[in-house]
Amino acid sequence: MYVIGERINGMFNVIGDALAAKDKKAVQEMAEKQIVGGADALDINVGTRVPKAERAAAMKWLVDTTREVTHKPLSIDNPSLETVRVGVEAAVKGGKAIINSTTGQQEKLAAFMKLAREFEAGIICLSIDENGVAATAEGKAEIGMRSLAAAMEAGVSVENVYLDPIILPVNCDQKAPGIVLETIRQFKLLSDPAPHIVIGLSNLSQGASERELINRAFLTMAVGAGLDAAIVDSLDTELMDSMIAAEMLLNRTIYSDSFLKAYRQR
Amino acid sequence: MYVIGERINGMFNVIGDALAAKDKKAVQEMAEKQIVGGADALDINVGTRVPKAERAAAMKWLVDTTREVTHKPLSIDNPSLETVRVGVEAAVKGGKAIINSTTGQQEKLAAFMKLAREFEAGIICLSIDENGVAATAEGKAEIGMRSLAAAMEAGVSVENVYLDPIILPVNCDQKAPGIVLETIRQFKLLSDPAPHIVIGLSNLSQGASERELINRAFLTMAVGAGLDAAIVDSLDTELMDSMIAAEMLLNRTIYSDSFLKAYRQR
Repeated sequence: MYVIGERINGMFNVIGDALAAKDKKAVQEMAEKQIVGGADALDINVGTRVPKAERAAAMKWLVDTTREVTHKPLSIDNPSLETVRVGVEAAVKGGKAIINSTTGQQEKLAAFMKLAREFEAGIICLSIDENGVAATAEGKAEIGMRSLAAAMEAGVSVENVYLDPIILPVNCDQKAPGIVLETIRQFKLLSDPAPHIVIGLSNLSQGASERELINRAFLTMAVGAGLDAAIVDSLDTELMDSMIAAEMLLNRTIYSDSFLKAYRQR
Repeated sequence: MYVIGERINGMFNVIGDALAAKDKKAVQEMAEKQIVGGADALDINVGTRVPKAERAAAMKWLVDTTREVTHKPLSIDNPSLETVRVGVEAAVKGGKAIINSTTGQQEKLAAFMKLAREFEAGIICLSIDENGVAATAEGKAEIGMRSLAAAMEAGVSVENVYLDPIILPVNCDQKAPGIVLETIRQFKLLSDPAPHIVIGLSNLSQGASERELINRAFLTMAVGAGLDAAIVDSLDTELMDSMIAAEMLLNRTIYSDSFLKAYRQR
């Protein structure tokens, strides 16, 4: 699994406050903790507390600050092409960048794919188009196909494409998680080699009780269905343990009596 | 999910000792605890400590003793047709019986299906034939198909058939768990309505470290793949919580803020 740590996000107070106070240490500690927890990459999101006009500058500061302590890929999480470009430019100075994210409207796709090509960046493609979030597995797969075609056209390799079926809170629509699992199975069949598939897990349990249990059970089922990347809280040890065990059971990593430890020490 | 509690088994000391001492209370307490933990049915297995010649009588005692405290279905777990018949006859006096289990050899299948028909019992059909445990999803599906055909021929309804793909310890063959997940998906397609699919979970982690984690992660993936029954330790609260959450996420039960409690109070 490709684990993208979700915690450098202005929506969390520790990062929101760090952004306001330009407190590098808080950000860098969060980066390091997530990597120790098992993150292969770090999501960088300035949140909504920063005024729109200042978000590009805030993104640059957050990326530069994180880059001082790690060469891991950084996932630049913002809907604006301009802000994403600023973040990607900063990120690639010390490692790989991942664009998080584009939606599936033709023009937007073309512009974001061009950016991905320019910086050899990964790119997360959401199952959203002019009609909003696709509600069915077929609708999501159609947008996934369109995203792969746009990548090919722009010269972005399949290895850099991460299809995201989009998870909605289970307490809003209880049919949606099952549809996401079905979509993961369908995404696997869209190309050979199969595209990467990513989910932003925590949204699933927004407002629900038993959040950690819900996240853990769904991630485990999603890994079983073919998921190979996830934006998650890598500080959640039980979540990571379940994911590591699921991968081992799918023969993606080797069993040993210390398989949990072995995974974290890769 | 149809949860069959695994703990009334002579292999566990508390039951082995109870069998030797004819201690009803120990058996009945175990029955009641498992039901409180979420068991819909109870597996009854005399184990191997009892001499072969006395196993049918031991089965009768164990079933009679359990029947004094519950009308839940009892799964009569023994390879011998004679011992199973004695157990089923005792079980149906106070509720339903499940035959656990038949293998897929034609003659054995026919004899066990006849017994299932006679007592309107459920029947667990293992993916084993004259060549041993089928190693591939295709081989397992072929035996599953043969089992369904034998059921139809004997007049046993699909609702009473539980196909078991057989789980082997992950530390013996790490490819096997993934094959079982693939088999579950294939079993679902064998008939309409789909047959029930059951696994005996604990065998997966025999001799492994992190047994509870491994069991939990696999059961969750198996539920996601379409499993609808399992022989498990219903006293393992974390296992049951994961299973309950997985089912809720698949929209098989209704979400509420107290979905765990609601499941247990069904």
